[in-house]
Amino acid sequence: MNVIEKGELCYTGKAKAMYATNDPDVLWVEYLDQATALNGKRKVAIAQKGLLNNRISSLLFQDLAAHGIPNHFISQTSDYVQLVRRVTMLPLEVVVRNAASGSFERKFGVAHLTRLTPPVLEFFYKSDQLDDPAINDSQIHALKLASPATLAEVRRQALQVNHRLSEIFAAMGIQLVDFKVEFGLTATGTVLLADEISPDSCRLVDQATHRSLDKDVFRQDLGELTPVYQEVLTRLATVEGSSTHVSG
Amino acid sequence: MNVIEKGELCYTGKAKAMYATNDPDVLWVEYLDQATALNGKRKVAIAQKGLLNNRISSLLFQDLAAHGIPNHFISQTSDYVQLVRRVTMLPLEVVVRNAASGSFERKFGVAHLTRLTPPVLEFFYKSDQLDDPAINDSQIHALKLASPATLAEVRRQALQVNHRLSEIFAAMGIQLVDFKVEFGLTATGTVLLADEISPDSCRLVDQATHRSLDKDVFRQDLGELTPVYQEVLTRLATVEGSSTHVSG
Repeated sequence: MNVIEKGELCYTGKAKAMYATNDPDVLWVEYLDQATALNGKRKVAIAQKGLLNNRISSLLFQDLAAHGIPNHFISQTSDYVQLVRRVTMLPLEVVVRNAASGSFERKFGVAHLTRLTPPVLEFFYKSDQLDDPAINDSQIHALKLASPATLAEVRRQALQVNHRLSEIFAAMGIQLVDFKVEFGLTATGTVLLADEISPDSCRLVDQATHRSLDKDVFRQDLGELTPVYQEVLTRLATVEGSSTHVSG
Repeated sequence: MNVIEKGELCYTGKAKAMYATNDPDVLWVEYLDQATALNGKRKVAIAQKGLLNNRISSLLFQDLAAHGIPNHFISQTSDYVQLVRRVTMLPLEVVVRNAASGSFERKFGVAHLTRLTPPVLEFFYKSDQLDDPAINDSQIHALKLASPATLAEVRRQALQVNHRLSEIFAAMGIQLVDFKVEFGLTATGTVLLADEISPDSCRLVDQATHRSLDKDVFRQDLGELTPVYQEVLTRLATVEGSSTHVSG
């Protein structure tokens, strides 16, 4: 591969900035030392958060690829940067839930951490203006956000991701309660896992103590975020047999 | 059939009261001269509304049965009363939408009466305490509210009902924008259309003028409800070749 050079800013999200590069198929992703809650209404700087999430996300994407789940990750190039394949994002957040928590717990009056079998799959329509409403298959089809075939493939891959992530976290002594992922389409229309997978996008609790090991620490003001994310990375690096530092 | 006698009150809904009868398989339904909005928070008496809805609902259930869509309706026995087959209700409201209106329009920022193709199908979990939240297939399965097979059959029947109701209303010069139905299970587990079908549960607009011919007249304070429901009944009776009065 040629040397990739950072280009124009494409997009700044809640905790990442995406840049074009000299390769039209490659995006430059910078993880930010920043946390948001309440759909962006609350935003604060948190030292090292970007570094930790970049490393965690890189390790998880690599693990998934090694377990037959292709995704947009190409390589981690520095503490805060990873390169990913450019895809056309579907305007959907895909949530998989193994146990009741957060909005599911409140919406359906189910006790915290009630096991959900089979896992629950939810879609949300990504629209800041509409406040990311929950959306079902039939609404997605009518609004032409994804074809039935694409949606079926998204569902299949999301459950595959859930299966492997649950295994990884279980090996780390962590219960994967729920997580959010996003998918894109390649130029040839293939559904590809994208976005990030980190304690920002996963709800994680220690199996023994039920202590939160994710962004709920920030959302619910439960203490310092950095040591918690560092703990997740340390456990993950042990399981993956990897250094917690950037390899190059 | 033996003479059916009214028994104990089972349940009072927003606009109907259900009574047991001397036949354990039969319920006595009294349509009330009452309208509610805002999930029951606003309630007023409206003369003749029960009579009109009973007649409209009876005609529609008879028409559906004649068109191969079985339902719980047995017979209309007086102005305000119909007898129905007792079923175990699924705790779901099933909404079918042919065009954007109401909560769909607001939730997804779609222009009023935008055609929805294919029709949108939505489920809501019937729970006053939880304020009837929208619920998807996967949530329904995880909460054990209906089996996948039952849900597939509910979906099939709801779309069948939509097809026939759209034809009936089109013949009346009315667009069926959306409607809500509920289903029950017979003792042998068969899915059976139940509840009511009336301008309380359908969103109807005049094809020529887009004037509301349904409960939106009440919800949005657009004028007197009774003349509007009478107009729907008059048009329906003409199409069905029926008297607008109770036949016996």
